[in-house]
Amino acid sequence: MKIKEIGEFGLIDRITRKQNNKEVIVGIGDDAAVFQTTIGLQVLTTDCLVEGDHFKREWFSSEQIGMKAIEINVSDIAAMGAKPKYVLVSMALPIDLDVEFVDGLYKGMWKSCSKYKIEIIGGNMTHCNKIVISITLTGEVNKKKLSLRSGAKPGDFIFTSGHLGFGKAGLRLFQEKIKGFEKVKKAYLEPKAQLKTALDIAQYVNSLIDISDGLGPEIRHICKQSGCGAIIYKDKIPISEEVRNVADKLGEDEYNYALFGGEDFQLLFTVSKENIDKVKGFLIGEIIKNKKISLFYNGKKKEIKEKGYDHFSRGI
Amino acid sequence: MKIKEIGEFGLIDRITRKQNNKEVIVGIGDDAAVFQTTIGLQVLTTDCLVEGDHFKREWFSSEQIGMKAIEINVSDIAAMGAKPKYVLVSMALPIDLDVEFVDGLYKGMWKSCSKYKIEIIGGNMTHCNKIVISITLTGEVNKKKLSLRSGAKPGDFIFTSGHLGFGKAGLRLFQEKIKGFEKVKKAYLEPKAQLKTALDIAQYVNSLIDISDGLGPEIRHICKQSGCGAIIYKDKIPISEEVRNVADKLGEDEYNYALFGGEDFQLLFTVSKENIDKVKGFLIGEIIKNKKISLFYNGKKKEIKEKGYDHFSRGI
Repeated sequence: MKIKEIGEFGLIDRITRKQNNKEVIVGIGDDAAVFQTTIGLQVLTTDCLVEGDHFKREWFSSEQIGMKAIEINVSDIAAMGAKPKYVLVSMALPIDLDVEFVDGLYKGMWKSCSKYKIEIIGGNMTHCNKIVISITLTGEVNKKKLSLRSGAKPGDFIFTSGHLGFGKAGLRLFQEKIKGFEKVKKAYLEPKAQLKTALDIAQYVNSLIDISDGLGPEIRHICKQSGCGAIIYKDKIPISEEVRNVADKLGEDEYNYALFGGEDFQLLFTVSKENIDKVKGFLIGEIIKNKKISLFYNGKKKEIKEKGYDHFSRGI
Repeated sequence: MKIKEIGEFGLIDRITRKQNNKEVIVGIGDDAAVFQTTIGLQVLTTDCLVEGDHFKREWFSSEQIGMKAIEINVSDIAAMGAKPKYVLVSMALPIDLDVEFVDGLYKGMWKSCSKYKIEIIGGNMTHCNKIVISITLTGEVNKKKLSLRSGAKPGDFIFTSGHLGFGKAGLRLFQEKIKGFEKVKKAYLEPKAQLKTALDIAQYVNSLIDISDGLGPEIRHICKQSGCGAIIYKDKIPISEEVRNVADKLGEDEYNYALFGGEDFQLLFTVSKENIDKVKGFLIGEIIKNKKISLFYNGKKKEIKEKGYDHFSRGI
């Protein structure tokens, strides 16, 4: 069944669920959503997925697209040291899209939402020739845990929460139509926000960001906003055997995947020496006073140039 | 200059302004925005403008598109009886769009924002073959003023805050390439949210909604959610002479513009008898127990059928 057959109201009926949370005073169905807040800091983020740019319908199931839409926003909230809370979903959809596709999107969104105990409380729908899913996510954070990009200090050690390069390796497998490598493909199709880790480490880090655009651009964000530089120890960058195998198969460089690939959604953070034992993750470098960002390898330093995912330079 | 020439970061630099509000702890430039809240009810809405669906670049200046993006969201917050507060802007833009166009968008958004004393504190940018502007707006509301669609009661009088039909009449002028009628065209290109009126009347109304889809669909929303019906006195629907002249010129029905045209962004509200003198606006009907929605004209009632702006049935 096509969405033009059931119309906007039919579609809204399909995606509306009863709200049980007593803090939600008004949910889906009015001009705006209303919720009660406790005293504290509110966090607000928005991120959108555009068909052809962030996903292709041949590669992703509708459920996976829905999951990804939620995960990338939870990742942004996690990167503040905050707890995610309420979701608004704004979608632009082609009128001849199957209704079942939208059902799948919501199934995926609900799945990720229930994992993080967050709720869709509102949104908006309109049409477009491409699928555009724009998510707004609120969060709450304790001042003590609020973790910004701007807090890195010379002498800090740089950590990443997990292995890098899965996002780009998975994308390359789909682009080149390579069979196998199911684990890598799944990591690309179903990225996970590192919320638990973020909440565990938030009070101990000096700076925190999520790796959506690649290690290179993200460490650059931290350094630019903190007024410092960084040295990354190339052979400490955690890259799994599966990702190395993909790079081998394609004759490409796995470090390029990690540095400039993006879509890994691991955390990148800096910690002062005295807090090192309080965080988990891979130590991959250090923050320095000199504002250059370099890769250290074989006893030599090489500057990392500005490169990586620019949303206006390419799609997938 | 095209946006692909300056890239995402160049564009962000152009649209980032210094934040002076002390309640904004983190503004544009981190993974999410952070703001301090007072105790109370938070309101959250999102609405998006899609090129070709909600605006055409031949008709609207970029500044007008930016203004409209803010106004339609302020209108949704106003329709809750709430005060708007913080804005997130999520944009998908074609890579060969002129940077000056984006500058114009922001000029328009800032203009409307400063009118309502609200602030852009975050957002997100990516690319798409069409311009998609998705706005998230927060608000705050006192419980006493919170005004829902669901509170209408039989015996309530139905009011609209202003003249209807401008939105559709203006659109028809552009579609048919008619010269003149500048006031009507301007009303279409530069719709205004009725925030002041909404805040003035909020504590006296039983139900409140903004007219984005036409009087017919909006009164239907109120009736459906309040479990009642309505009679609209056709000759009390306020339609200006300018709009009548457009309808005459095109051989169309001005009441169709008002009932099913949409994009007027006036308020529609219901008030009990004892509060009538506390609100301003045009009395256009009454709420009844019987769940039908009828138009009363020439001593006869005629049921208003479900029709109007369905976001999946047509564009502009």
